[in-house]
Amino acid sequence: MKAHIISIGNELLIGDTINTNAAWLGEFLTGMGFDVKLVQTISDEADLIKESITQSMEKADLVISTGGLGPTHDDITKKAVAELFDVGFLRDEQTLEYIRSIFKKRNIPFSKSNYAQAEVPKNAEVLFNKAGTAPGMLFKENGSVLVVLPGVPHEMKYLMKKRAAPKLREIFGDLQFVYFHYIKTAGIGESTLSDEVLGDLSEYFTNGVSLAFLPSGGGVNLRLTATGKTKEEAKGNLNDLSELIYTKAKKYIYGEGKDYSISEAVGDLLYEQGKYISVAESCTGGLVANTFTDVPGSSRYFQGGIIAYDNAVKHQQLGVAEDDLLQFGAVSKPVALQMAKGVAERLGTSIGISTTGIAGPDGGTDEKPVGTVWMGFYQQDGAHFAVKTVFTKDRLMNKQRTMMVLMEITRRVLKGIPEMPYDLEKQYP
Amino acid sequence: MKAHIISIGNELLIGDTINTNAAWLGEFLTGMGFDVKLVQTISDEADLIKESITQSMEKADLVISTGGLGPTHDDITKKAVAELFDVGFLRDEQTLEYIRSIFKKRNIPFSKSNYAQAEVPKNAEVLFNKAGTAPGMLFKENGSVLVVLPGVPHEMKYLMKKRAAPKLREIFGDLQFVYFHYIKTAGIGESTLSDEVLGDLSEYFTNGVSLAFLPSGGGVNLRLTATGKTKEEAKGNLNDLSELIYTKAKKYIYGEGKDYSISEAVGDLLYEQGKYISVAESCTGGLVANTFTDVPGSSRYFQGGIIAYDNAVKHQQLGVAEDDLLQFGAVSKPVALQMAKGVAERLGTSIGISTTGIAGPDGGTDEKPVGTVWMGFYQQDGAHFAVKTVFTKDRLMNKQRTMMVLMEITRRVLKGIPEMPYDLEKQYP
Repeated sequence: MKAHIISIGNELLIGDTINTNAAWLGEFLTGMGFDVKLVQTISDEADLIKESITQSMEKADLVISTGGLGPTHDDITKKAVAELFDVGFLRDEQTLEYIRSIFKKRNIPFSKSNYAQAEVPKNAEVLFNKAGTAPGMLFKENGSVLVVLPGVPHEMKYLMKKRAAPKLREIFGDLQFVYFHYIKTAGIGESTLSDEVLGDLSEYFTNGVSLAFLPSGGGVNLRLTATGKTKEEAKGNLNDLSELIYTKAKKYIYGEGKDYSISEAVGDLLYEQGKYISVAESCTGGLVANTFTDVPGSSRYFQGGIIAYDNAVKHQQLGVAEDDLLQFGAVSKPVALQMAKGVAERLGTSIGISTTGIAGPDGGTDEKPVGTVWMGFYQQDGAHFAVKTVFTKDRLMNKQRTMMVLMEITRRVLKGIPEMPYDLEKQYP
Repeated sequence: MKAHIISIGNELLIGDTINTNAAWLGEFLTGMGFDVKLVQTISDEADLIKESITQSMEKADLVISTGGLGPTHDDITKKAVAELFDVGFLRDEQTLEYIRSIFKKRNIPFSKSNYAQAEVPKNAEVLFNKAGTAPGMLFKENGSVLVVLPGVPHEMKYLMKKRAAPKLREIFGDLQFVYFHYIKTAGIGESTLSDEVLGDLSEYFTNGVSLAFLPSGGGVNLRLTATGKTKEEAKGNLNDLSELIYTKAKKYIYGEGKDYSISEAVGDLLYEQGKYISVAESCTGGLVANTFTDVPGSSRYFQGGIIAYDNAVKHQQLGVAEDDLLQFGAVSKPVALQMAKGVAERLGTSIGISTTGIAGPDGGTDEKPVGTVWMGFYQQDGAHFAVKTVFTKDRLMNKQRTMMVLMEITRRVLKGIPEMPYDLEKQYP
C-alpha cells in the first residue's frame, strides 16, 4: 500500500520551519505497513493544493496532508479540498460545541467567523479534534483515501494516532504490521560495532527483518525492523536477531526504546542500587547536571552539582589543591580526580563525577589542544580514576561527547563492566 | 525565478532523518531571490529520480537535488542523471587527485572502486568538493539549471555557498537580492507584541518589505525581509520599518542576528560592565549554567554555579536557612532570595541568580501546582528580589521557559529597565 504526504505551508518552503511533521508521519505510516513513496511540500495556494492532492490520489492508496486548517486567511486547505471534490460545507455540531466550550472557558467572545472552524466539506468523515479547534477530515474518493490534518505538531499527532489510524486499519484491512525495536548502545563507534562486534548478519534478514545503525550524539542506536500479520508476529520475527545482538554486543547496550536516554539508564541503575550521585563540571558547564535533571524523578538519585568554571571555584568549593592547579593546570588528571572526590564529599553522595577540558573553539596549546578533556570518577570505598580523551574543535560537540562518555563510564562502573568506553585508559591517582 | 528542491533518500521518507537540508536550502535560495515553489522527497530509485528531475526542470528555472552521491550501491543519483541526459562519464582529475590525497593522509589503500567517486556525467560542470569526496555538479539543459549536491549537510552547504551560488548569480543575472534582518525579543508574548506594542505596520510593507513573528523557546524573533537590486538597496528598504520597531519595542529587544541568543546578550552586558555572575539552580538543574557556557568566551563573565537539587545542598552549599525550607518549602520566595545571595557570596561574584520550582510532570499541590517557579536575583550593593510565575505541566518546557525569563530579568536589571518581563511582579525580601 503506497502513501504520499503533502505538507502545506509557505513557512516550510522558505525554511522558517523545519518539516518535522513529515518525518514523524513517515515513521508512523511505515510502522502501520504503508510504503511512503513521496513527501511533497507546497505553498498555501488553492490551485497547487488541488493539483498535488489529485496527482497523489491517482498514484497512492493513502494521501495525508498537513497544514492550512487554521482560522486565518492563509488557511485555505479546507476550501481547496471542497472545490476539488465539488461539494459544499456542513456544520459539524460536535466540533462547534467543543469550540464554544473552549471560548467560554477562556472567557473570549464567540464571533461569527468562529463558526467557519466547525464547517467541513459534505463528503468528509470528521476526525474530532480534542487537542485544538480545527477538525481533521477523512475522504474516500476514486479508490484512494485522503486524510487532512492540521499542521500544529501535537494536534496532527493526536488526530493521526487516535482518530485516523483506527479508521485506516479498518479500510486497509490487510496491512502488514511493521514493528520497530530500538537497541541503544554507547562507548563504541558505528563501524567497529558493525564490522567487528556484530559482523555479517545478513542471514537473519528474512521475513522483512532489517537492521539500521543510527549514530546519535555520541552513541549508536540500532533500529531493528520486522513485518508480520500482527504486532506479535512481527515482533516474533525479530527474536533471533535481537538475541544475537545481545549476545555479541551486550556490554555496549544501555537500554531499549527509541526515547530511552543514557542519563535515564544511569539513573535507573543508581536508583536500583540505592546510590546518589553528584557532579563537578568545568568544560561541560552544567550539561551533565542538565541531562540528569531532564529525566522526571531524577531527584531520587541526583543530589546536585558544582559548576566550577573558574579555578577559584575548583579550589574553594571542591577542595582542589591550588598547587596542583598551578603545577598541572586545570585540564589535568589530578584536578579531575580531586573534583570528583570533592563534589562527592561536599554534597554527601557515594559517587562523584567530574569534567575539566578545553571546550573550544580557542584556548588550546600544543600539549593540550582544543578538545582535550579529563573526566574523573570517584566512588566512596570504591574506584577512583580519571580518563583522558581528545575530541574535536567544535565547542557544543565537545560538551555533548564529554557528557556521553562520562555517562557511559558511570554506567560501566555501576554494571561492573571492567573496560572503559572506546577503550580509553583508566588512570589511577 | 522559480526553484524546486528534490531531496533523495529513503531515510527521509521513513522518518529516520529529519529533512533539515531542505529548510536550509529553502532559506538560502529565498535569500538569493528565488521563489521556492516545491520541495519533494523521494526514495533512491533511478526511475523516480529521473521523473522528478524532468518534471521539475520543466516547471522551474532552478532545480537542486541533494543526496545519493556517496560510494555505496544505494547511491544512484549520478547514474540516474547521466541516463536522463543520455551521456557517458568523464573522470574529473582535480577530484581524483583530492580523493587520493585524502586516502594517503589517512593511510587507507586506494581501491579501484574509489575511481568512481571522481567520475561525472560528460555534460556536468564540476563543483569541486573540498569538504568531502563526492563532487557537486551543475547542468544547463533545456532552459533550466540543475544543481546536484551530496546529502551530508556540511558538504551540501559548503558546495552551495562556495561553488553553486556564484555560478547561479552569473547565470541568473537579474536576481532580486533578498535581505533578512532578525530582531530578537524576550519577555513579551507574540500577540501582545504584534497587536499592542507594534500595531498595524502595513504601510511599511512596500518594496518587498515584510515582517514575520517567529516564537522561539520563550522569546519572539522578528524576521524583517526586503528585496532590492543589491544587498545595500534591500537593506536600505528596511530602514524605516527597523527604526519604527526599535522606537516602539526597544525594551523587549535584546539583540540582532539569527543566531544571537539571550545568554550571549546577557554575557555581552556583563562583560561590558566588568561584572561576574554565578547561578544557583534547583528546578532548572543545570540548564541556566549550560546555556551560559554554550557561548565561547563565557569564562570572561561566568564564574560557576551550584546545582542545589536536594534541600541539603541548598542549606549546606548556599546557606539557605533550614527553618525557611521547613516553614515555606523549597519553592518559595525566601528560598529563591537566599539561593541567589548565597551563590554570589560563596562564589565571589557581584551578581547571583537562582531558580526553584516544580518542573513536573508530578509533584504539584493545590497551593503550588506543577510549573510553579520562583526566580531570585541578587546584586551586591544593589537589587535583591524574587519573581514568581506558573508555567505548564511539561517538564522540559518549564526548564526552558524558566531559563529564558531569568535571563531576561538579568538583562533588564543590567540595562536599567525597571519593569520585569511579562509584567511579573518584583517581590523584595
